[in-house]
Amino acid sequence: MIMDKLQLSVRIALNAWEANVKRANAVFGKFTNEELMLEVAPGKNRVIYILGHLIAVHDMLLPLLGLGERLYLQLDEAFISNPDKMIKELSSPGDLRTYWININDILLNRFNSLSPDEWFQKHTMISEEDFAKEPHRNRLSVLISRTAHLAYHLGQVALVKK
Amino acid sequence: MIMDKLQLSVRIALNAWEANVKRANAVFGKFTNEELMLEVAPGKNRVIYILGHLIAVHDMLLPLLGLGERLYLQLDEAFISNPDKMIKELSSPGDLRTYWININDILLNRFNSLSPDEWFQKHTMISEEDFAKEPHRNRLSVLISRTAHLAYHLGQVALVKK
Repeated sequence: MIMDKLQLSVRIALNAWEANVKRANAVFGKFTNEELMLEVAPGKNRVIYILGHLIAVHDMLLPLLGLGERLYLQLDEAFISNPDKMIKELSSPGDLRTYWININDILLNRFNSLSPDEWFQKHTMISEEDFAKEPHRNRLSVLISRTAHLAYHLGQVALVKK
Repeated sequence: MIMDKLQLSVRIALNAWEANVKRANAVFGKFTNEELMLEVAPGKNRVIYILGHLIAVHDMLLPLLGLGERLYLQLDEAFISNPDKMIKELSSPGDLRTYWININDILLNRFNSLSPDEWFQKHTMISEEDFAKEPHRNRLSVLISRTAHLAYHLGQVALVKK
């Protein structure tokens, strides 16, 4: 298939997203359930918090990109609204691993179903008026920004001493 | 100025790059020269190593993207070829801060001088033959990948306890 430049620009952003998700799968896969309770640095977030946080942030992409309803709203209290260790009862590591794989599978499917033009449509948190003035605030910019967010936290998880 | 989608795709990637560079400027700016010697986590890289590493990696973008000769080759031994603390004599914090601002200024100028079409040209580390088969290996993909690289290390620097 010959891609035009617009398709390529979307493909490149999707490749970067996929590469970071795969990297994350490999990283989290190397932690036992017990090791998920380790802090990335003394007094800092535990790996399980970062995992839950990433699931919740990725889950938020469904409504933000107009791709569906959220699946894991129940994670927000422990992993978005509060810092680590505030909420004592967390989802089990096994459940979180399942959610992580599931949300990324669903996102990738929905992402791949969007046409290049649809990536240049506005995301749902900006009004039509503002989007007319700031057309870069589209789905593609959200994807690139969330890829950097994922990389940011992967850098932290890489520091854990097991 | 009305941007077409191709211009927008480049602008979005450049915005993400710029946002992370600005964030890095703010983060590094909050460290004193002494605090640059702190490790991001016990036994891990020092902040000064990450700063030097990022300068060298960004400097490498000049030849990689066909935008010029390298400026700070002398950093490679301490910040690329060797892990932290192997090389005892490092550039001074003041020099590194200057290099950091300078390389990012130069890159941004060169980036902004490229037309959208030029972002879809191959980078210099891939042959014409391979690029014909893998047209996504262009300048734009390098930019997005280096943005994630920067975010990865910023996540680590955020953990430093001063």
